[in-house]
Amino acid sequence: MRSWSFFKGHGTENDFVLIPDRDGLLDIGPEAVRYLCDRRAGIGGDGLLRVVLAKHVPEWTGEGSLWFMDYRNADGSIAEMCGNGVRVLVRYLVEQGLASGPVVRIATRGGLREATVLPDRRIRVAMGPVVVGGAEVTVRTSDGTRFAATVADVGNPHAVSFTDDLDRLPLHEQPSWEPAGVFPGGVNLEFVRRVGERHIAMRVHERGSGETRSCGTGTVAAAAVAVATGRGEATEGSGSEPVTIRVDVPGGTVQVELSDAQTYLTGPAVLVAAGEVAMPRELLRSPAG
Amino acid sequence: MRSWSFFKGHGTENDFVLIPDRDGLLDIGPEAVRYLCDRRAGIGGDGLLRVVLAKHVPEWTGEGSLWFMDYRNADGSIAEMCGNGVRVLVRYLVEQGLASGPVVRIATRGGLREATVLPDRRIRVAMGPVVVGGAEVTVRTSDGTRFAATVADVGNPHAVSFTDDLDRLPLHEQPSWEPAGVFPGGVNLEFVRRVGERHIAMRVHERGSGETRSCGTGTVAAAAVAVATGRGEATEGSGSEPVTIRVDVPGGTVQVELSDAQTYLTGPAVLVAAGEVAMPRELLRSPAG
Repeated sequence: MRSWSFFKGHGTENDFVLIPDRDGLLDIGPEAVRYLCDRRAGIGGDGLLRVVLAKHVPEWTGEGSLWFMDYRNADGSIAEMCGNGVRVLVRYLVEQGLASGPVVRIATRGGLREATVLPDRRIRVAMGPVVVGGAEVTVRTSDGTRFAATVADVGNPHAVSFTDDLDRLPLHEQPSWEPAGVFPGGVNLEFVRRVGERHIAMRVHERGSGETRSCGTGTVAAAAVAVATGRGEATEGSGSEPVTIRVDVPGGTVQVELSDAQTYLTGPAVLVAAGEVAMPRELLRSPAG
Repeated sequence: MRSWSFFKGHGTENDFVLIPDRDGLLDIGPEAVRYLCDRRAGIGGDGLLRVVLAKHVPEWTGEGSLWFMDYRNADGSIAEMCGNGVRVLVRYLVEQGLASGPVVRIATRGGLREATVLPDRRIRVAMGPVVVGGAEVTVRTSDGTRFAATVADVGNPHAVSFTDDLDRLPLHEQPSWEPAGVFPGGVNLEFVRRVGERHIAMRVHERGSGETRSCGTGTVAAAAVAVATGRGEATEGSGSEPVTIRVDVPGGTVQVELSDAQTYLTGPAVLVAAGEVAMPRELLRSPAG
Protein backbone atom coordinates (compact mmCIF):
# COMPACT_ATOMS: atom_id res chain seq x y z
CA MET A 1 0.00 0.00 0.00
CA ARG A 2 1.16 3.54 -0.76
CA SER A 3 1.61 5.93 2.10
CA TRP A 4 1.87 9.70 2.33
CA SER A 5 3.73 11.82 4.84
CA PHE A 6 1.46 13.83 7.09
CA PHE A 7 1.52 16.20 10.02
CA LYS A 8 -1.32 16.93 12.40
CA GLY A 9 -1.75 20.21 14.22
CA HIS A 10 -4.33 22.57 15.62
CA GLY A 11 -5.02 26.20 16.52
CA THR A 12 -7.41 26.49 19.49
CA GLU A 13 -8.39 22.88 18.69
CA ASN A 14 -9.45 23.66 15.14
CA ASP A 15 -7.40 20.78 13.73
CA PHE A 16 -5.84 19.95 10.41
CA VAL A 17 -4.11 17.21 8.51
CA LEU A 18 -1.11 18.74 6.72
CA ILE A 19 0.10 17.00 3.58
CA PRO A 20 3.53 18.24 2.42
CA ASP A 21 3.58 18.48 -1.40
CA ARG A 22 6.32 20.99 -2.17
CA ASP A 23 6.45 20.26 -5.88
CA GLY A 24 2.73 19.84 -6.49
CA LEU A 25 2.93 16.15 -7.33
CA LEU A 26 -0.16 15.03 -5.42
CA ASP A 27 -3.66 15.17 -6.84
CA ILE A 28 -5.86 15.01 -3.73
CA GLY A 29 -9.46 14.36 -4.68
CA PRO A 30 -12.50 14.87 -2.43
CA GLU A 31 -12.56 11.16 -1.51
CA ALA A 32 -8.94 11.30 -0.32
CA VAL A 33 -9.70 14.44 1.73
CA ARG A 34 -12.70 12.75 3.34
CA TYR A 35 -10.58 9.69 4.16
CA LEU A 36 -7.72 11.68 5.67
CA CYS A 37 -10.09 13.89 7.70
CA ASP A 38 -12.20 10.94 8.91
CA ARG A 39 -11.61 10.81 12.65
CA ARG A 40 -12.13 7.04 12.90
CA ALA A 41 -11.21 5.49 9.56
CA GLY A 42 -8.42 8.00 8.78
CA ILE A 43 -6.30 10.57 10.65
CA GLY A 44 -9.00 13.08 11.52
CA GLY A 45 -9.27 16.82 11.13
CA ASP A 46 -11.66 19.70 10.53
CA GLY A 47 -9.82 20.22 7.27
CA LEU A 48 -6.77 19.39 5.19
CA LEU A 49 -3.88 21.69 4.27
CA ARG A 50 -1.85 20.70 1.23
CA VAL A 51 1.46 22.58 1.52
CA VAL A 52 2.74 23.39 -1.97
CA LEU A 53 4.96 26.01 -3.56
CA ALA A 54 2.70 28.66 -5.11
CA LYS A 55 4.32 28.35 -8.54
CA HIS A 56 2.72 24.92 -8.86
CA VAL A 57 -0.80 26.30 -8.26
CA PRO A 58 -2.35 27.35 -11.60
CA GLU A 59 -4.88 29.77 -10.07
CA TRP A 60 -2.16 31.69 -8.18
CA THR A 61 -0.84 34.58 -10.26
CA GLY A 62 1.42 36.16 -7.62
CA GLU A 63 4.91 35.40 -6.35
CA GLY A 64 5.74 31.77 -7.10
CA SER A 65 8.28 31.20 -4.34
CA LEU A 66 5.69 31.61 -1.58
CA TRP A 67 4.08 28.65 0.16
CA PHE A 68 0.48 28.14 -0.87
CA MET A 69 -2.18 26.88 1.55
CA ASP A 70 -4.43 24.54 -0.45
CA TYR A 71 -7.22 24.28 2.11
CA ARG A 72 -10.05 21.74 1.92
CA ASN A 73 -12.95 21.23 4.29
CA ALA A 74 -13.37 17.79 5.86
CA ASP A 75 -16.15 16.97 3.36
CA GLY A 76 -13.74 17.45 0.45
CA SER A 77 -14.97 20.86 -0.64
CA ILE A 78 -12.53 23.71 -1.35
CA ALA A 79 -12.48 26.80 0.86
CA GLU A 80 -10.94 30.21 0.27
CA MET A 81 -9.26 30.77 3.61
CA CYS A 82 -8.85 29.49 7.13
CA GLY A 83 -7.40 31.74 9.80
CA ASN A 84 -6.51 28.94 12.22
CA GLY A 85 -5.11 26.96 9.30
CA VAL A 86 -2.70 29.76 8.38
CA ARG A 87 -1.28 29.71 11.92
CA VAL A 88 -0.83 25.95 11.90
CA LEU A 89 0.78 26.11 8.46
CA VAL A 90 3.20 28.83 9.63
CA ARG A 91 4.05 26.77 12.73
CA TYR A 92 4.85 23.82 10.43
CA LEU A 93 6.98 25.90 8.05
CA VAL A 94 9.00 27.47 10.88
CA GLU A 95 9.48 24.20 12.83
CA GLN A 96 10.55 22.35 9.68
CA GLY A 97 12.94 25.12 8.64
CA LEU A 98 10.95 25.87 5.48
CA ALA A 99 10.43 29.50 6.50
CA SER A 100 12.62 31.60 8.75
CA GLY A 101 10.09 34.00 10.30
CA PRO A 102 9.17 35.92 12.32
CA VAL A 103 7.19 37.29 9.34
CA VAL A 104 5.93 34.66 6.91
CA ARG A 105 3.78 35.44 3.88
CA ILE A 106 1.33 32.73 2.79
CA ALA A 107 -0.51 32.46 -0.52
CA THR A 108 -4.16 31.40 -0.21
CA ARG A 109 -7.22 31.29 -2.48
CA GLY A 110 -8.37 34.35 -0.50
CA GLY A 111 -5.16 36.21 -1.43
CA LEU A 112 -1.87 36.88 0.31
CA ARG A 113 -1.82 36.59 4.11
CA GLU A 114 1.02 37.90 6.26
CA ALA A 115 1.70 36.10 9.53
CA THR A 116 4.02 37.05 12.39
CA VAL A 117 5.39 34.61 14.96
CA LEU A 118 5.26 36.53 18.24
CA PRO A 119 7.86 36.20 21.05
CA ASP A 120 5.30 34.26 23.17
CA ARG A 121 4.97 31.74 20.31
CA ARG A 122 1.46 32.89 19.39
CA ILE A 123 0.99 33.74 15.73
CA ARG A 124 -0.71 36.88 14.40
CA VAL A 125 -2.29 36.73 10.96
CA ALA A 126 -3.50 39.67 8.86
CA MET A 127 -6.98 38.59 7.76
CA GLY A 128 -7.87 41.47 5.41
CA PRO A 129 -10.85 43.78 5.83
CA VAL A 130 -14.24 42.53 7.07
CA VAL A 131 -17.48 43.61 5.43
CA VAL A 132 -20.41 43.56 7.87
CA GLY A 133 -24.05 43.67 6.80
CA GLY A 134 -25.99 43.26 3.58
CA ALA A 135 -28.70 40.62 3.62
CA GLU A 136 -31.12 40.10 6.53
CA VAL A 137 -30.95 36.46 7.55
CA THR A 138 -32.80 34.23 10.00
CA VAL A 139 -30.94 31.17 11.30
CA ARG A 140 -32.86 28.20 12.69
CA THR A 141 -31.27 25.46 14.81
CA SER A 142 -32.59 21.90 14.67
CA ASP A 143 -34.69 22.41 17.84
CA GLY A 144 -36.68 25.09 16.00
CA THR A 145 -35.16 28.16 17.70
CA ARG A 146 -34.81 31.17 15.39
CA PHE A 147 -32.05 33.78 15.51
CA ALA A 148 -31.78 37.11 13.69
CA ALA A 149 -28.31 36.97 12.13
CA THR A 150 -25.98 39.63 10.79
CA VAL A 151 -24.03 38.73 7.69
CA ALA A 152 -20.27 39.26 7.49
CA ASP A 153 -17.71 38.55 4.78
CA VAL A 154 -14.12 37.67 5.77
CA GLY A 155 -13.20 36.35 2.33
CA ASN A 156 -15.78 33.64 3.11
CA PRO A 157 -19.40 34.04 4.18
CA HIS A 158 -20.63 34.19 7.79
CA ALA A 159 -23.91 34.78 9.62
CA VAL A 160 -23.54 35.88 13.24
CA SER A 161 -26.33 35.48 15.83
CA PHE A 162 -26.35 36.58 19.47
CA THR A 163 -27.72 34.48 22.32
CA ASP A 164 -27.35 34.31 26.09
CA ASP A 165 -27.29 30.50 26.17
CA LEU A 166 -24.50 29.00 24.08
CA ASP A 167 -24.38 25.70 25.96
CA ARG A 168 -27.74 24.34 24.83
CA LEU A 169 -27.39 24.95 21.09
CA PRO A 170 -27.85 21.65 19.17
CA LEU A 171 -24.94 22.29 16.80
CA HIS A 172 -24.35 18.58 16.20
CA GLU A 173 -27.05 19.07 13.56
CA GLN A 174 -26.95 21.45 10.59
CA PRO A 175 -28.92 24.66 11.23
CA SER A 176 -30.94 26.11 8.34
CA TRP A 177 -31.31 29.74 7.23
CA GLU A 178 -33.80 31.97 5.43
CA PRO A 179 -34.06 33.11 2.76
CA ALA A 180 -32.76 29.73 1.65
CA GLY A 181 -31.16 31.07 -1.54
CA VAL A 182 -28.94 33.67 0.13
CA PHE A 183 -25.88 31.40 0.61
CA PRO A 184 -25.85 29.05 -2.39
CA GLY A 185 -22.38 27.77 -1.44
CA GLY A 186 -23.21 27.38 2.27
CA VAL A 187 -22.28 29.61 5.18
CA ASN A 188 -20.43 29.53 8.47
CA LEU A 189 -22.79 30.13 11.38
CA GLU A 190 -21.51 31.83 14.53
CA PHE A 191 -23.48 31.99 17.81
CA VAL A 192 -22.12 34.64 20.14
CA ARG A 193 -22.59 35.60 23.76
CA ARG A 194 -21.31 38.88 25.17
CA VAL A 195 -19.08 38.09 28.18
CA GLY A 196 -17.94 41.59 29.10
CA GLU A 197 -16.23 44.64 27.72
CA ARG A 198 -14.49 43.72 24.46
CA HIS A 199 -14.93 40.08 25.34
CA ILE A 200 -17.24 37.58 23.63
CA ALA A 201 -17.70 33.80 23.63
CA MET A 202 -18.65 31.89 20.50
CA ARG A 203 -19.66 28.52 19.09
CA VAL A 204 -19.55 27.87 15.38
CA HIS A 205 -21.02 25.52 12.79
CA GLU A 206 -18.68 25.50 9.79
CA ARG A 207 -19.88 24.67 6.32
CA GLY A 208 -18.26 21.46 5.19
CA SER A 209 -17.07 20.52 8.69
CA GLY A 210 -19.97 20.76 11.17
CA GLU A 211 -19.38 22.15 14.64
CA THR A 212 -15.72 22.82 15.29
CA ARG A 213 -13.86 23.89 18.43
CA SER A 214 -12.81 27.11 16.70
CA CYS A 215 -13.02 28.91 13.34
CA GLY A 216 -10.53 31.69 12.63
CA THR A 217 -12.55 33.68 10.10
CA GLY A 218 -15.57 33.05 12.33
CA THR A 219 -13.93 34.75 15.32
CA VAL A 220 -13.13 37.75 13.10
CA ALA A 221 -16.72 37.87 11.81
CA ALA A 222 -18.12 37.57 15.34
CA ALA A 223 -15.86 40.32 16.72
CA ALA A 224 -16.66 42.64 13.80
CA VAL A 225 -20.43 42.13 14.17
CA ALA A 226 -20.19 42.59 17.94
CA VAL A 227 -18.51 45.97 17.43
CA ALA A 228 -20.79 47.00 14.56
CA THR A 229 -23.91 46.29 16.62
CA GLY A 230 -22.63 48.01 19.77
CA ARG A 231 -22.02 44.80 21.70
CA GLY A 232 -18.26 45.16 21.60
CA GLU A 233 -18.39 48.46 23.51
CA ALA A 234 -15.80 50.09 21.31
CA THR A 235 -16.32 53.46 22.87
CA GLU A 236 -14.07 55.13 20.28
CA GLY A 237 -16.91 54.32 17.94
CA SER A 238 -15.49 55.87 14.81
CA GLY A 239 -13.93 52.72 13.44
CA SER A 240 -10.74 54.56 12.63
CA GLU A 241 -9.26 53.60 15.99
CA PRO A 242 -8.28 49.90 16.22
CA VAL A 243 -10.13 47.87 18.82
CA THR A 244 -9.11 44.47 20.20
CA ILE A 245 -11.76 41.90 21.09
CA ARG A 246 -11.10 38.76 23.09
CA VAL A 247 -12.98 35.78 21.64
CA ASP A 248 -13.39 32.59 23.70
CA VAL A 249 -14.12 29.51 21.60
CA PRO A 250 -14.61 25.95 22.89
CA GLY A 251 -10.98 25.17 22.03
CA GLY A 252 -9.30 28.20 23.58
CA THR A 253 -8.97 31.96 23.24
CA VAL A 254 -7.92 34.25 20.40
CA GLN A 255 -7.61 38.02 20.00
CA VAL A 256 -9.12 39.90 17.07
CA GLU A 257 -7.87 43.40 16.23
CA LEU A 258 -10.28 45.40 14.09
CA SER A 259 -9.78 48.57 12.09
CA ASP A 260 -11.26 49.86 8.84
CA ALA A 261 -8.47 48.68 6.62
CA GLN A 262 -7.25 45.47 8.20
CA THR A 263 -8.02 42.84 10.83
CA TYR A 264 -5.60 40.64 12.74
CA LEU A 265 -6.22 37.28 14.36
CA THR A 266 -3.77 36.22 17.09
CA GLY A 267 -3.67 32.82 18.76
CA PRO A 268 -1.72 29.65 19.45
CA ALA A 269 -0.77 26.96 16.94
CA VAL A 270 0.80 23.60 17.70
CA LEU A 271 1.97 20.54 15.79
CA VAL A 272 0.90 17.34 17.53
CA ALA A 273 2.09 14.48 15.34
CA ALA A 274 3.97 13.52 12.21
CA GLY A 275 4.15 10.26 10.33
CA GLU A 276 3.01 8.20 7.40
CA VAL A 277 -0.61 7.47 6.51
CA ALA A 278 -1.70 4.48 4.43
CA MET A 279 -3.44 5.56 1.21
CA PRO A 280 -5.81 2.94 -0.21
CA ARG A 281 -5.18 2.51 -3.94
CA GLU A 282 -8.71 3.55 -4.96
CA LEU A 283 -8.13 7.01 -3.45
CA LEU A 284 -5.08 7.76 -5.57
CA ARG A 285 -5.54 9.41 -8.94
CA SER A 286 -3.07 10.68 -11.46
CA PRO A 287 -2.22 14.41 -11.45
CA ALA A 288 -3.81 14.62 -14.90
CA GLY A 289 -7.13 14.16 -13.10
CA MET B 1 9.62 18.25 23.47
CA ARG B 2 9.55 14.49 24.00
CA SER B 3 7.75 12.39 21.47
CA TRP B 4 6.40 8.83 21.52
CA SER B 5 5.99 6.41 18.65
CA PHE B 6 2.38 5.63 17.86
CA PHE B 7 0.22 3.69 15.43
CA LYS B 8 -3.41 4.35 14.63
CA GLY B 9 -5.81 1.65 13.50
CA HIS B 10 -9.42 0.59 13.62
CA GLY B 11 -11.76 -2.40 13.45
CA THR B 12 -15.13 -1.46 11.90
CA GLU B 13 -14.19 2.14 12.72
CA ASN B 14 -13.75 1.48 16.43
CA ASP B 15 -10.40 3.23 16.50
CA PHE B 16 -7.34 3.09 18.71
CA VAL B 17 -4.05 4.78 19.37
CA LEU B 18 -1.41 2.04 19.78
CA ILE B 19 1.63 2.90 21.88
CA PRO B 20 4.45 0.35 21.51
CA ASP B 21 6.10 -0.25 24.90
CA ARG B 22 7.72 -3.68 24.61
CA ASP B 23 9.75 -3.38 27.79
CA GLY B 24 7.16 -1.66 29.94
CA LEU B 25 9.10 1.59 30.25
CA LEU B 26 6.17 3.96 29.82
CA ASP B 27 3.91 5.03 32.64
CA ILE B 28 0.82 6.31 30.84
CA GLY B 29 -1.44 8.18 33.21
CA PRO B 30 -5.09 9.11 32.63
CA GLU B 31 -4.15 12.62 31.47
CA ALA B 32 -1.80 11.21 28.82
CA VAL B 33 -4.52 8.80 27.63
CA ARG B 34 -7.02 11.65 27.36
CA TYR B 35 -4.52 13.74 25.41
CA LEU B 36 -3.61 10.96 22.98
CA CYS B 37 -7.29 10.02 22.42
CA ASP B 38 -8.41 13.65 22.02
CA ARG B 39 -9.54 13.90 18.41
CA ARG B 40 -8.66 17.59 18.07
CA ALA B 41 -5.82 18.36 20.49
CA GLY B 42 -4.17 14.91 20.16
CA ILE B 43 -4.25 11.92 17.81
CA GLY B 44 -7.79 10.73 18.47
CA GLY B 45 -9.27 7.34 19.27
CA ASP B 46 -12.03 5.54 21.14
CA GLY B 47 -9.28 4.06 23.28
CA LEU B 48 -5.57 3.47 23.72
CA LEU B 49 -3.69 0.17 23.47
CA ARG B 50 -0.32 0.03 25.18
CA VAL B 51 1.52 -2.94 23.63
CA VAL B 52 3.79 -4.49 26.23
CA LEU B 53 5.31 -7.91 26.93
CA ALA B 54 3.16 -9.63 29.56
CA LYS B 55 6.12 -10.28 31.86
CA HIS B 56 6.27 -6.53 32.54
CA VAL B 57 2.63 -6.42 33.70
CA PRO B 58 2.46 -7.10 37.47
CA GLU B 59 -1.20 -8.22 37.45
CA TRP B 60 -0.56 -10.85 34.73
CA THR B 61 0.32 -14.20 36.27
CA GLY B 62 0.38 -16.27 33.08
CA GLU B 63 2.95 -16.80 30.33
CA GLY B 64 5.34 -13.84 30.28
CA SER B 65 6.38 -14.03 26.64
CA LEU B 66 2.89 -13.14 25.37
CA TRP B 67 1.93 -9.67 24.25
CA PHE B 68 -0.33 -7.91 26.72
CA MET B 69 -3.07 -5.51 25.63
CA ASP B 70 -3.12 -2.70 28.18
CA TYR B 71 -6.42 -1.15 27.11
CA ARG B 72 -7.65 2.25 28.28
CA ASN B 73 -10.87 4.05 27.42
CA ALA B 74 -10.61 7.50 25.88
CA ASP B 75 -11.44 9.09 29.25
CA GLY B 76 -8.37 7.48 30.83
CA SER B 77 -10.17 4.69 32.68
CA ILE B 78 -8.98 1.09 32.50
CA ALA B 79 -11.10 -1.58 30.78
CA GLU B 80 -10.88 -5.35 30.94
CA MET B 81 -11.20 -6.22 27.28
CA CYS B 82 -11.95 -4.85 23.85
CA GLY B 83 -12.81 -7.22 21.02
CA ASN B 84 -12.10 -4.76 18.22
CA GLY B 85 -8.93 -3.74 20.02
CA VAL B 86 -7.63 -7.31 20.03
CA ARG B 87 -8.04 -7.49 16.25
CA VAL B 88 -6.22 -4.20 15.72
CA LEU B 89 -3.46 -5.30 18.08
CA VAL B 90 -3.04 -8.59 16.21
CA ARG B 91 -2.94 -6.73 12.88
CA TYR B 92 -0.16 -4.53 14.30
CA LEU B 93 1.83 -7.49 15.67
CA VAL B 94 1.62 -9.43 12.41
CA GLU B 95 2.38 -6.44 10.16
CA GLN B 96 5.37 -5.44 12.31
CA GLY B 97 6.70 -8.99 12.43
CA LEU B 98 6.21 -9.21 16.20
CA ALA B 99 3.95 -12.28 15.88
CA SER B 100 3.93 -14.82 13.10
CA GLY B 101 0.28 -15.94 13.03
CA PRO B 102 -2.12 -17.17 11.86
CA VAL B 103 -2.90 -17.95 15.51
CA VAL B 104 -1.85 -15.26 17.98
CA ARG B 105 -2.55 -15.43 21.71
CA ILE B 106 -3.02 -12.11 23.51
CA ALA B 107 -2.93 -11.47 27.26
CA THR B 108 -5.63 -9.07 28.49
CA ARG B 109 -7.06 -8.02 31.84
CA GLY B 110 -10.03 -10.21 30.90
CA GLY B 111 -7.73 -13.23 30.48
CA LEU B 112 -6.09 -14.95 27.53
CA ARG B 113 -7.64 -14.33 24.09
CA GLU B 114 -6.77 -16.44 21.04
CA ALA B 115 -7.00 -14.74 17.65
CA THR B 116 -6.74 -16.24 14.17
CA VAL B 117 -5.84 -14.27 11.04
CA LEU B 118 -8.13 -15.68 8.34
CA PRO B 119 -7.15 -16.09 4.68
CA ASP B 120 -9.40 -13.14 3.72
CA ARG B 121 -7.44 -10.97 6.20
CA ARG B 122 -10.32 -10.78 8.66
CA ILE B 123 -9.40 -11.71 12.22
CA ARG B 124 -11.41 -14.08 14.44
CA VAL B 125 -11.12 -13.65 18.21
CA ALA B 126 -12.28 -16.08 20.90
CA MET B 127 -14.20 -13.86 23.32
CA GLY B 128 -14.97 -16.38 26.07
CA PRO B 129 -18.46 -17.32 27.23
CA VAL B 130 -21.28 -14.78 27.50
CA VAL B 131 -23.60 -14.67 30.50
CA VAL B 132 -27.05 -13.28 29.62
CA GLY B 133 -29.56 -12.06 32.19
CA GLY B 134 -29.57 -11.27 35.86
CA ALA B 135 -30.77 -7.80 36.78
CA GLU B 136 -33.82 -6.10 35.22
CA VAL B 137 -32.74 -2.74 33.88
CA THR B 138 -34.47 0.24 32.30
CA VAL B 139 -32.37 2.46 30.04
CA ARG B 140 -33.40 6.05 29.37
CA THR B 141 -32.00 8.15 26.51
CA SER B 142 -31.65 11.92 26.87
CA ASP B 143 -34.95 12.57 25.02
CA GLY B 144 -36.77 10.68 27.80
CA THR B 145 -37.45 7.44 25.90
CA ARG B 146 -37.30 4.32 28.10
CA PHE B 147 -36.12 0.88 27.03
CA ALA B 148 -36.37 -2.46 28.83
CA ALA B 149 -32.83 -3.81 28.70
CA THR B 150 -31.36 -7.28 29.11
CA VAL B 151 -28.06 -7.47 30.92
CA ALA B 152 -25.12 -9.43 29.49
CA ASP B 153 -21.58 -9.99 30.71
CA VAL B 154 -18.76 -10.46 28.15
CA GLY B 155 -15.99 -9.91 30.68
CA ASN B 156 -17.38 -6.39 30.88
CA PRO B 157 -20.96 -5.25 31.55
CA HIS B 158 -23.60 -4.60 28.90
CA ALA B 159 -27.30 -3.71 28.78
CA VAL B 160 -29.02 -4.53 25.48
CA SER B 161 -32.28 -2.85 24.36
CA PHE B 162 -34.32 -3.52 21.22
CA THR B 163 -35.89 -0.78 19.09
CA ASP B 164 -37.17 -0.40 15.53
CA ASP B 165 -35.72 3.06 15.08
CA LEU B 166 -31.96 3.19 15.57
CA ASP B 167 -31.42 6.35 13.53
CA ARG B 168 -33.12 8.77 15.90
CA LEU B 169 -31.44 7.74 19.14
CA PRO B 170 -29.69 10.75 20.75
CA LEU B 171 -26.53 8.83 21.64
CA HIS B 172 -24.37 11.96 21.56
CA GLU B 173 -25.58 12.31 25.16
CA GLN B 174 -25.09 9.81 28.00
CA PRO B 175 -28.22 7.67 28.60
CA SER B 176 -29.12 6.84 32.20
CA TRP B 177 -30.31 3.55 33.70
CA GLU B 178 -32.39 2.28 36.62
CA PRO B 179 -31.86 1.06 39.22
CA ALA B 180 -29.03 3.58 39.31
CA GLY B 181 -26.83 1.43 41.57
CA VAL B 182 -26.74 -1.64 39.34
CA PHE B 183 -23.62 -0.69 37.36
CA PRO B 184 -21.38 1.20 39.80
CA GLY B 185 -18.50 1.13 37.29
CA GLY B 186 -20.65 2.16 34.33
CA VAL B 187 -22.06 0.02 31.53
CA ASN B 188 -21.96 -0.32 27.77
CA LEU B 189 -25.40 0.31 26.26
CA GLU B 190 -26.40 -1.45 23.04
CA PHE B 191 -29.51 -0.55 21.02
CA VAL B 192 -30.44 -3.28 18.58
CA ARG B 193 -32.81 -3.66 15.64
CA ARG B 194 -33.65 -7.03 14.13
CA VAL B 195 -32.85 -6.89 10.40
CA GLY B 196 -33.67 -10.47 9.38
CA GLU B 197 -32.85 -14.04 10.15
CA ARG B 198 -29.66 -14.15 12.22
CA HIS B 199 -29.01 -10.55 11.26
CA ILE B 200 -29.18 -7.54 13.58
CA ALA B 201 -28.09 -3.90 13.44
CA MET B 202 -26.75 -2.07 16.45
CA ARG B 203 -25.65 1.29 17.85
CA VAL B 204 -23.66 1.51 21.05
CA HIS B 205 -22.82 3.98 23.80
CA GLU B 206 -19.57 2.83 25.44
CA ARG B 207 -18.70 3.74 28.98
CA GLY B 208 -15.67 5.96 28.96
CA SER B 209 -15.89 6.69 25.23
CA GLY B 210 -19.42 7.82 24.31
CA GLU B 211 -21.03 6.64 21.10
CA THR B 212 -18.58 4.67 18.98
CA ARG B 213 -18.87 3.27 15.46
CA SER B 214 -18.51 -0.26 16.84
CA CYS B 215 -17.87 -2.14 20.09
CA GLY B 216 -16.62 -5.72 19.88
CA THR B 217 -17.88 -7.00 23.22
CA GLY B 218 -21.08 -5.06 22.51
CA THR B 219 -21.72 -6.98 19.28
CA VAL B 220 -21.23 -10.24 21.19
CA ALA B 221 -23.62 -9.10 23.93
CA ALA B 222 -26.21 -7.96 21.37
CA ALA B 223 -26.04 -11.23 19.41
CA ALA B 224 -26.29 -13.33 22.57
CA VAL B 225 -29.30 -11.38 23.88
CA ALA B 226 -30.97 -11.56 20.43
CA VAL B 227 -30.66 -15.34 20.47
CA ALA B 228 -31.63 -15.68 24.15
CA THR B 229 -34.80 -13.63 23.61
CA GLY B 230 -35.82 -15.41 20.40
CA ARG B 231 -34.94 -12.53 18.09
CA GLY B 232 -31.98 -14.32 16.56
CA GLU B 233 -34.20 -17.11 15.25
CA ALA B 234 -31.77 -19.80 16.23
CA THR B 235 -34.19 -22.57 15.34
CA GLU B 236 -31.85 -25.16 16.78
CA GLY B 237 -32.79 -23.60 20.06
CA SER B 238 -30.87 -25.81 22.39
CA GLY B 239 -27.78 -23.64 22.64
CA SER B 240 -25.53 -26.62 22.15
CA GLU B 241 -25.44 -26.03 18.39
CA PRO B 242 -23.33 -23.00 17.41
CA VAL B 243 -25.20 -20.18 15.70
CA THR B 244 -23.67 -17.31 13.70
CA ILE B 245 -25.24 -13.85 13.84
CA ARG B 246 -24.39 -11.03 11.46
CA VAL B 247 -24.12 -7.70 13.31
CA ASP B 248 -24.16 -4.43 11.35
CA VAL B 249 -22.65 -1.50 13.24
CA PRO B 250 -22.26 2.09 11.98
CA GLY B 251 -18.64 1.34 11.07
CA GLY B 252 -19.12 -1.96 9.23
CA THR B 253 -20.13 -5.57 9.76
CA VAL B 254 -18.89 -8.35 12.04
CA GLN B 255 -19.92 -11.96 12.62
CA VAL B 256 -20.56 -13.39 16.08
CA GLU B 257 -20.51 -17.17 16.61
CA LEU B 258 -22.29 -18.28 19.76
CA SER B 259 -22.21 -21.54 21.62
CA ASP B 260 -22.46 -22.47 25.30
CA ALA B 261 -18.76 -22.68 25.94
CA GLN B 262 -17.25 -20.03 23.70
CA THR B 263 -18.03 -17.09 21.44
CA TYR B 264 -16.07 -15.81 18.47
CA LEU B 265 -16.01 -12.34 16.97
CA THR B 266 -14.81 -12.05 13.35
CA GLY B 267 -14.19 -8.82 11.50
CA PRO B 268 -11.70 -6.56 9.71
CA ALA B 269 -8.80 -4.68 11.29
CA VAL B 270 -6.58 -2.10 9.58
CA LEU B 271 -3.64 0.07 10.49
CA VAL B 272 -4.05 3.59 9.14
CA ALA B 273 -1.04 5.57 10.28
CA ALA B 274 2.25 5.44 12.13
CA GLY B 275 4.46 8.19 13.44
CA GLU B 276 5.63 10.27 16.35
CA VAL B 277 3.39 12.22 18.69
CA ALA B 278 4.55 15.18 20.75
CA MET B 279 4.17 14.55 24.49
CA PRO B 280 3.87 17.73 26.58
CA ARG B 281 6.20 17.52 29.56
CA GLU B 282 3.39 17.81 32.13
CA LEU B 283 1.89 14.55 30.85
CA LEU B 284 5.02 12.51 31.46
CA ARG B 285 5.53 10.85 34.80
CA SER B 286 8.15 8.52 36.09
CA PRO B 287 7.44 4.75 36.06
CA ALA B 288 7.65 4.88 39.84
CA GLY B 289 4.37 6.79 39.71
